[in-house]
Amino acid sequence: MKYSIIAVGDEVLKGEVANTNCDYLSKSLMEKGFDPSFTFVCGDIEADIAKCLDMSKDSDLVVLTGGLGPTPDDLTRQTVASFLGLPLALDQEIKNQIKQRFQKLGLPMPDNNVNQAMVPKGATVLGNPNGTAPGLYISQNNKTYILLPGPPRELVPMWEDYALNMLYTPGQKTFKKEYYVYGLGESAMAEKLGEMLMRKEQPFVAPYASLGQVRLRVWARVKNQKEFENISSKICEEITQKLAGNLFEDVLEIELGKALKAKGWTLSSAESCTGGLIAKTITDVPGSSDYFKGGCISYSNEVKMKILEVNQSTLSEYGAVSEQVALEMAYGAKRAFGTDCSIATTGIAGPGGGTPNKPVGLVYICVMWPGGNKVIKRVFTGGRSEVRFRTMMVGMYEMLKRVSV
Amino acid sequence: MKYSIIAVGDEVLKGEVANTNCDYLSKSLMEKGFDPSFTFVCGDIEADIAKCLDMSKDSDLVVLTGGLGPTPDDLTRQTVASFLGLPLALDQEIKNQIKQRFQKLGLPMPDNNVNQAMVPKGATVLGNPNGTAPGLYISQNNKTYILLPGPPRELVPMWEDYALNMLYTPGQKTFKKEYYVYGLGESAMAEKLGEMLMRKEQPFVAPYASLGQVRLRVWARVKNQKEFENISSKICEEITQKLAGNLFEDVLEIELGKALKAKGWTLSSAESCTGGLIAKTITDVPGSSDYFKGGCISYSNEVKMKILEVNQSTLSEYGAVSEQVALEMAYGAKRAFGTDCSIATTGIAGPGGGTPNKPVGLVYICVMWPGGNKVIKRVFTGGRSEVRFRTMMVGMYEMLKRVSV
Repeated sequence: MKYSIIAVGDEVLKGEVANTNCDYLSKSLMEKGFDPSFTFVCGDIEADIAKCLDMSKDSDLVVLTGGLGPTPDDLTRQTVASFLGLPLALDQEIKNQIKQRFQKLGLPMPDNNVNQAMVPKGATVLGNPNGTAPGLYISQNNKTYILLPGPPRELVPMWEDYALNMLYTPGQKTFKKEYYVYGLGESAMAEKLGEMLMRKEQPFVAPYASLGQVRLRVWARVKNQKEFENISSKICEEITQKLAGNLFEDVLEIELGKALKAKGWTLSSAESCTGGLIAKTITDVPGSSDYFKGGCISYSNEVKMKILEVNQSTLSEYGAVSEQVALEMAYGAKRAFGTDCSIATTGIAGPGGGTPNKPVGLVYICVMWPGGNKVIKRVFTGGRSEVRFRTMMVGMYEMLKRVSV
Repeated sequence: MKYSIIAVGDEVLKGEVANTNCDYLSKSLMEKGFDPSFTFVCGDIEADIAKCLDMSKDSDLVVLTGGLGPTPDDLTRQTVASFLGLPLALDQEIKNQIKQRFQKLGLPMPDNNVNQAMVPKGATVLGNPNGTAPGLYISQNNKTYILLPGPPRELVPMWEDYALNMLYTPGQKTFKKEYYVYGLGESAMAEKLGEMLMRKEQPFVAPYASLGQVRLRVWARVKNQKEFENISSKICEEITQKLAGNLFEDVLEIELGKALKAKGWTLSSAESCTGGLIAKTITDVPGSSDYFKGGCISYSNEVKMKILEVNQSTLSEYGAVSEQVALEMAYGAKRAFGTDCSIATTGIAGPGGGTPNKPVGLVYICVMWPGGNKVIKRVFTGGRSEVRFRTMMVGMYEMLKRVSV
């Protein structure tokens, strides 16, 4: 079952109003087992709405949002009616409801609002407890058209309380299993997974990449969880084997928290170039105070010496951005905060501060755990925020590897 | 001049990734004097991309986003080339650039990535400092096609630094003056500015609100900077008067840095509930090591006592989330890091940890400067990340107020 969404309205088209309805409806329809075909945004122009309807003719379901208001630029109702060849007729009951809404507010009903009581022949009216624009549900030649008002506080209840019930087809639902991939780029991951990413039959495998992370989703439309597990277990096992060491059930900061709790270990941070980003990310997780005790942002040599007890001789011999200082910072954090593990970073995030020997993007990351320690050297490209972000991701991933062993 | 936008990608179509690019590009194009025609979202299917291209044929400009990655489901490049009848050829220079990007990361270039160096005949390549996917700019029969990568951190700089310059039409240009408003909500600001926000003639005044911040833009399409200043100086003066004390030239962290440098003062942080977010935000600014010396994330009472020298009796008498502890933390940061100023936060970010007397969202923020100190108590609504973010914004704003006097 294919669906298309047509969002009608100049304000959405011009980006003046964020188009949240399409995402919302897509998520809901996918969960119900529909597959998306197109999403359109068009202005309040009859010909443009008609073009989108025409281009949606391969879809089993077309959802239109917006353009149901009382003013002359609200054209969705009449355009759909004329596209489907359905005459419009005044629905006296709706007219009365709208009138009553205005009466409750102590206002006369403007003449314009009568337009909202015009209903295409054969359409079912969807109630709108939060506004004057009723929704419409039209079935024709095995295709369904649903017209919803634009404002989310009217659209969402109408969708959930009325439209979905009418759409519901018993039998199938979308089931999924999600993974997170760290320490491996999207193309390297794609090479390891190969053909699997291009499966033309269920279950499907889809990657979603962002900076330093790939989310991997295995999904299928089946009757129940058991059937999903039956058809996906082999693929999931294959993924687990092929991406061993890089595959996790959740995001880094949550995985790291789970691993620390399982070991009963505590963590601290000593950050120079990341400037607090690691501590911030770790403490994004509710309950992180169970294992994260504290951190030091050492943005000067004095702080590195005073709080982290880095040796002055190490700083002068190797410089603040060096393997040796990263190591002493990690020791210092463990000592100052009394923790079992620590992550330390020192580097040149840029744009200034680079030299031929120590270019912008050079970072040293030290992770320390009860069994040992490891200093990682990397040279990252990209701007200041990318260098800082990647440093954080590598630090968290390298720490997790040691804690989850 | 009409434009259409085609966002390509299953993840956008399915609503798994918020479609922020379309709004962003629409705003930018409207400012440049273009009128929107359609916005499409389609999946990674060649036939569907082609349908959208076909439906955009009345547009003077078609911007495509996404589908420029290295994997087999990235189809935008080849679909546009085939739609326009342009052969693809390998661009050796781009291939080398991509190779170098991987070399810098110490990785071999996966074979897949060669696809990203394929360029349609006659196209201009748009540089991508933040990723491997180059953009493309194609002119054919008075129509322009611009292909941009999907991730906003790659799309935005490519759009602003390369694509917009190529679109430039001689004669008029967009000139603008931007302000940042802090410590004042969007509706309170709108009340102060009144009619000004609804101007129907140049210069226009447009607010862009986000959490804890409103960006206010005065803009017009005119010949040159001098003409812009002539028509906008009166409005700008009025804004400056009406929003005095809340109006700044730049974002908080940059304004705070400028103010500290002007006074020759240094800063440190002591963070409990914000967990490093304040230090992270301050150090987002290049050169912040000139005034920011360091910070302590004190996620346990032990750290508050040991590093920040908060008194055990204060902690046991008033609790960690109290005015008194915020004050002692700020003193402690000044002492530990040897700075002139400090910001300290302690609070209950949630979702757990609230009590009837100290509910989730309660925070104490202390700012300290050579002339004195101030503790601010707030009870924020919203989830954990919103409470943390708002605490950071209030701390930075209250500090800035004292430093910029």
